This record gives sequence, C-alpha cells and structure tokens, in this order.
Amino acid sequence: MKIYFNCELVSEEDARVSVFDRGFMYGDGVFETMRAYGGVVFKINDHIDRLRRSLTMIRLENLPLSDESLCEAIYDTLNANAVTEAVVRLSVSRGEGPIGLSIAFCRQPMIVIAARPFTPYPEDYYTNGIKLITAKIIRTPANALNPMIKSLNFLNNILAKAEADDVAAHEALMCNVNGHLAECSTSNIFFIKEATLYTPSVKSGILDGVMRAQVLELACEAELQVVEGEFFPATLYRADEVFVTNSVMEIMPVTAVDAVTYPVGRATVKLMKAFSKHMERYLQPRQYRQ
Amino acid sequence: MKIYFNCELVSEEDARVSVFDRGFMYGDGVFETMRAYGGVVFKINDHIDRLRRSLTMIRLENLPLSDESLCEAIYDTLNANAVTEAVVRLSVSRGEGPIGLSIAFCRQPMIVIAARPFTPYPEDYYTNGIKLITAKIIRTPANALNPMIKSLNFLNNILAKAEADDVAAHEALMCNVNGHLAECSTSNIFFIKEATLYTPSVKSGILDGVMRAQVLELACEAELQVVEGEFFPATLYRADEVFVTNSVMEIMPVTAVDAVTYPVGRATVKLMKAFSKHMERYLQPRQYRQ
Repeated sequence: MKIYFNCELVSEEDARVSVFDRGFMYGDGVFETMRAYGGVVFKINDHIDRLRRSLTMIRLENLPLSDESLCEAIYDTLNANAVTEAVVRLSVSRGEGPIGLSIAFCRQPMIVIAARPFTPYPEDYYTNGIKLITAKIIRTPANALNPMIKSLNFLNNILAKAEADDVAAHEALMCNVNGHLAECSTSNIFFIKEATLYTPSVKSGILDGVMRAQVLELACEAELQVVEGEFFPATLYRADEVFVTNSVMEIMPVTAVDAVTYPVGRATVKLMKAFSKHMERYLQPRQYRQ
Repeated sequence: MKIYFNCELVSEEDARVSVFDRGFMYGDGVFETMRAYGGVVFKINDHIDRLRRSLTMIRLENLPLSDESLCEAIYDTLNANAVTEAVVRLSVSRGEGPIGLSIAFCRQPMIVIAARPFTPYPEDYYTNGIKLITAKIIRTPANALNPMIKSLNFLNNILAKAEADDVAAHEALMCNVNGHLAECSTSNIFFIKEATLYTPSVKSGILDGVMRAQVLELACEAELQVVEGEFFPATLYRADEVFVTNSVMEIMPVTAVDAVTYPVGRATVKLMKAFSKHMERYLQPRQYRQ
C-alpha cells in the first residue's frame, strides 16, 4: 500500500511519524473518512469543508495545501494504489513540537492519506439489521471538546464501542450529559415514527455526518417529514424504525436497541433505495470526467 | 537522543510509529511524565501504578512488560542518554490494528520512553508566581473520559492552554461540568485560606497527580489542615494563597487568577521548603544504591 505522507507517496513501511508528533503524543489533530465509488470520492468537498472546520476549531490553520491540492492528493493516493472501491482516511496532526501543550511552536502539520480497498459489511446487516446498545459512557460534551470536531481524540468513542463489543452488539449509542440521544461511536442515529424522520440535532452534541446530511436531503423523496431535536432514549424505544448512517456503512437498519426490537421498516428501505438512486445520478456525470 | 521504542533503544530518527498505530489514529493510549533528579526517578513506583490504572481504565492490559521491566527500561533510557536531571515521558499506545474502533484485534502495544534533559522553569516563576486564567472550555467529565486516565486524548487540555496563551497567562484553570474547580491544563490546583489547604477532590474530575499526593502528605509539616472538596471559582478568588503542582514544575506559586491577585504567601513558601527537604531525604539513600 502507498500512503500519502508529508507531501509524497511512500510505502506503508515508510509511513511512520515521529514519537514526538503531537498526533501520537496528544491526539492533537483531526481526520476524515471518505468512501470512493468507482474511483469517485463521494462528497469530497463536504469532507474537505468539514476538515477545515475541524482544523479551525482546534486552531490548526497553517495547512500548506489548498482544498484543490488536498483533493488532488486524495485522488493521487487512490490512483497509486489502483483502488476504485475504497475507504479513504485523511489525517492531519499538528506535527512535531516541543514538550508541553502550547501550540505556538508547531510549525509543520503532518498530512497522511491512506486508501484501503473497501470491504463490504455482511449483506445480512442491511437485510436483517444490526443491534445497538446504549453505552454507559456519555458523549463528550461540546463545551469540553466539541463532537463537531472530528479529532484524533477518540477514546470516548472507543470505550463506548467496547461496551457494545462486550455484549456482541454492533454499535454503541451514546447520550449526552443531559441524557439526550447524541450519536453512536462512529455513526449518526435516526428513527422513524408515523412518517416522520427524527434525528438528534447538532445541539445534542454530535458530529454533523456527511451521510447524515445526505439522508436529511433524501427524506422528502421517501415522503418523510424531518425533525431534528433533543430526544430521550424512551422516545427512540417507541419508534417504528431505526437506522444509523456514516460514509462507509451508508444507511444501515437497526433491529434492536437494548431490549427493544424493530423491523427493517418500509421507510428505511425506501431511504436506502433513494440513496442508491442518488448515487447512480451522482456518479454518472463524473465518470465522463475521468 | 536515544529512545526506548518497542523494547529496544533506537535513535530519535528511528523512533517512528506507523500511521496505523492507534496512538496516532485515535489517541488510543496513555502516558506518564516523570522527573529524574541526580539520576533517580522521583516516585517511579507511583507513576507506574498510575500507568497501570490508566491502562486498566482503557482496557489495555496486555502489556508485555512487568513493573520491574518498565522501571529498568526507564533507567536504561536515562543511562543511554547520560542524563541525570531529566523529564521522562513513558507512553503506551494500543499499537497497530485494523480500521475501526474495536480493540479486540490490537495484539501488540507500543511502548515509548523518552528522557530529555530537564530545562528549569524561569526562577522568576517560583519567586514572583505565575498567572492563571479560568478557561471557557470545561474539563472533560469523568463519565465521558475520566481525567484519572492520563490518556493520549489531550485536545481538551490543549484548547484550554491555548486560551491561556491568548492572554499571555501561564496556565489555564478548568472547571467541571458543574462549575466546580477541576484542574489546570497540566497541573493540579491548591489554595490556602487561614491555615487550611484546599484542593479539588478526585470527585471534581481530576488527575490524581503524583505531586498533588506529595503535597497533601507534606501539608502537616507546613502546619496546614487539608480539605479536599468541590469548590466554585468564587472560593478560590477569596483565598490567601494559590499554587499549582505537577511532577515537572513541582510547587509553583500563583499570583493571579483572572483579575484577582495573591502574594507568594508564607504557607506556600513553607511547603516549597518542606518539599526540598523531603527531596534531600528521598534522594539520599538511593544514591548509595548506584
């Protein structure tokens, strides 16, 4: 595998950061995970926009690459690995710096791009749904470290995911400090009740997922009203249908949250189909470009 | 500089972790910062005990080294660099793993030890005190990611420190989600009022600092009662004296918190002297060993 590393493509063996890189020392950086379909990175501009917002929020604004150069670097990485169906991870750390937390002396951010062949989730996850548990650990509140920052500080999510693994659930749902639903360890949550699609609002302390935005856009095609708000788990338990989203899993039905079960419902299937159609349209014109 | 890296001493140039190391990808690991005096690492066992507690709390328990081997590795690193007055950083990450948050497939933790010559803080900090500000950002609550875990997730502290840097303050004081005093970005806070020494309790959501424990032990030598509790900033503003502690700065007087000023008080100086005396006693017998 070739990795984009500090402005050049190197072998995986050579893609190594100093132990004094602040990414390794403090998780001091941000990242994006994207999906390439037929060689086209879905919503690449949205991902780069969000990366910029994350960078601004952690005050890392001296990136040596323009948005266009970042796009180019992502496609160069895909091409160097000759992968078209891929998961792309773009990470930016604050680079090396002296000991201590001050950010003033970190001169050179570290940019890493890896493109791995996409391994599909088991088909069964989409046809029969996955199981969630509500984690005991709460989502880090926005006034401590805003979940809108897709940062390299992921221990909160990792410990939530470990709670899910303990009971052989697929994902961990996290509530915020007020007890409202926030998001899952690596996905956004949605539920449907009587032709309305509900999802925790950004005010709930979540990452504003690129796939989340896509689903909200598609809701009217599936004849669903949309309500973004603050919801307690009890409301989710009474839902008709539940699903989660992220850029890699897309729309994945949920058939159990804790002890409550749900069918893979008609509206969820409609949304999944609407997304497939949208992807066809999205990819069509772009293929001529190549 | 020689770095202890994955069970051997290598040059700084070769001390590089894979970009797929979970320390770099997710801040998935823990660390300790220690101080060596005359070649003796102060409270090394307390640091290793805390490292173990941190590791347990993040479910990273397959460390290939015993406590004795960790101690040995620390001293090997000091000796390889021929430093006796040093700051030692011991980091443990979960090592490389497949993409995704599950910890189940990470087989080989990464252990890194670096020993840098100790650069003293300006003498002025100890004689005239430092300035703190109260950060707007709150300390991550214990039910999201316990501050008792000295983890590689340090963005919360980094962003607090940046607030201090903005106004040329030396340290940022963070409150918890309830508005109680918690701790500074890399130090514990103490204040004195009428012969009583106050410090936020562990319940306030703090790291239980090794130097904090040392100061609490020394309090009676300085004729101070000790109260660990939950305090609002207003209580701190009304204090007679304030200081902060960590293993590198030891006891450092604080002469301003926000708009409130304090003298470098008699009790603080007494504690600083008690600590110096304690260090003499602490180092004495150990020097025969070497």
